Amino acid sequence: MKTIGVIGGHLASASHLKMAEQIGSEIARLGMVLVSGGLSGVMEAACRGAKKAGGKTLGILPGIDKEEANKYVDIPVVTGLGLARNILVVRNSDLIVAIDGRYGTLSEISYALHFQIPVIGLETWDIEGVIKAKDIPDCLNKMKKILAGLKQE
Amino acid sequence: MKTIGVIGGHLASASHLKMAEQIGSEIARLGMVLVSGGLSGVMEAACRGAKKAGGKTLGILPGIDKEEANKYVDIPVVTGLGLARNILVVRNSDLIVAIDGRYGTLSEISYALHFQIPVIGLETWDIEGVIKAKDIPDCLNKMKKILAGLKQE
Amino acid sequence: MKTIGVIGGHLASASHLKMAEQIGSEIARLGMVLVSGGLSGVMEAACRGAKKAGGKTLGILPGIDKEEANKYVDIPVVTGLGLARNILVVRNSDLIVAIDGRYGTLSEISYALHFQIPVIGLETWDIEGVIKAKDIPDCLNKMKKILAGLKQE
Amino acid sequence: MKTIGVIGGHLASASHLKMAEQIGSEIARLGMVLVSGGLSGVMEAACRGAKKAGGKTLGILPGIDKEEANKYVDIPVVTGLGLARNILVVRNSDLIVAIDGRYGTLSEISYALHFQIPVIGLETWDIEGVIKAKDIPDCLNKMKKILAGLKQE
Repeated sequence: MKTIGVIGGHLASASHLKMAEQIGSEIARLGMVLVSGGLSGVMEAACRGAKKAGGKTLGILPGIDKEEANKYVDIPVVTGLGLARNILVVRNSDLIVAIDGRYGTLSEISYALHFQIPVIGLETWDIEGVIKAKDIPDCLNKMKKILAGLKQE
Repeated sequence: MKTIGVIGGHLASASHLKMAEQIGSEIARLGMVLVSGGLSGVMEAACRGAKKAGGKTLGILPGIDKEEANKYVDIPVVTGLGLARNILVVRNSDLIVAIDGRYGTLSEISYALHFQIPVIGLETWDIEGVIKAKDIPDCLNKMKKILAGLKQE
Repeated sequence: MKTIGVIGGHLASASHLKMAEQIGSEIARLGMVLVSGGLSGVMEAACRGAKKAGGKTLGILPGIDKEEANKYVDIPVVTGLGLARNILVVRNSDLIVAIDGRYGTLSEISYALHFQIPVIGLETWDIEGVIKAKDIPDCLNKMKKILAGLKQE
Repeated sequence: MKTIGVIGGHLASASHLKMAEQIGSEIARLGMVLVSGGLSGVMEAACRGAKKAGGKTLGILPGIDKEEANKYVDIPVVTGLGLARNILVVRNSDLIVAIDGRYGTLSEISYALHFQIPVIGLETWDIEGVIKAKDIPDCLNKMKKILAGLKQE
């Protein structure tokens, strides 16, 4: 099972939500499981995109109630760890796409880069090590290249 | 998504492994997702049973490498939390079947009873609050009754 | 720094609270740091005993607010992990005294025995591996013997 | 108990280590407990500074062995949570000073800013929200101002 994480905030602009949905659909088309923090905003839009394209979604939740997952999460995993669950979102992703996001997203980017999990960034934090994508096609292109590399490992 | 957790040790007798496999198959036949700690012994036997019967399995691992999951785990979730992951196995189960097991299993039984998640016990720790089953048919019977109650909630 | 954990419930009888306070004082007299979950009941009584005897207390809290610690905790450590913090209480104790307690306490006893941390029990869960003490002097005696063994390591 | 966290990497230049040691000493002189991740590099230098100035140090460790703490840690707290312990370092600090550091440090800065815990930065990540100090006296000045504000709360 290869997985792609999509990270980003609860609160996001219409344009970021649309990006997240498109990326979610692409992940599904690639046959990958989409991993996220399972809540609203970018997370929900990505899951919606994945489900529209027939994909599978795993949501790793901060709380203890699986009802908190957005309705596009197939497999909710509750943790009760609060924001300490961010490291689990990261650890369960072979590749990460970050879209927009605030400090919670930055904590996930940091962990990913620490663990040498590739992070593609779409209008997100400009941190050394993040692979910047200028738009959706560029992001998709970069995702495919990284996945090709991961499969060879 | 309703889930049933199966807990028990790495090391188990042939008879306990057989029990675990049968319970795993029954969980699949009930249409439930089987949750476990994802490793060997009782966990692996239960997952094997579920897969033989066409079910779905979620394995919540102590380490950071999803390759540590037994080969019958469909959805491995790595945690890097060591044995602190036991509470996640419990939290992600709507009902638990405990088979044999040592202290790790006892920590899971304790957490489940604390959170008022029902625990059916098959030749496991004799703790107040555990619903004792005398054999597989009795266990299955008790599982069905509890699930009927959970659905009414 | 050698530490002794005292575990037991929020809710406890006057007699168990008195035991906890006496054990807390003895831990201080032995020059040990008292570790606990930092909340009320047995935890608070043990901390009070330790402070009365001039000792030092470490409280490992489930929440994120150090004000939740009882007033006899010198060093509160917040975790935000909920009951997953139980494993931290155990890991930070070289020896544990369990007094009374319900399922939370049982999860701690289980973890301790799993990690081969000695557990002395005073009117608590009757679990294989727990060293039963019949009263305070017997408990103190057993604590001293175990500590002598730990120092030789 | 008011606490100041010092965060930064295992690997640090002589100049960053000297900074960390000076900041550690200042924290002790302010009568604050120094919180850190308890390991080497910036963490160790800060603890050494605090101890030289007669202060107290709390080290929150990723592993399960308190012997991993640097020798200037008075109160080691083991977690067994790996890098998920970073959130605990942050949560246990009323104010944070970040010196240099790589992605682990960035995860801590992110969590701190998310939880609205003030972060003063000395030659560290240039992240929106971090209060930049240009040198030790400036850092000390800013620490005092923030602490004055925290006390009024």
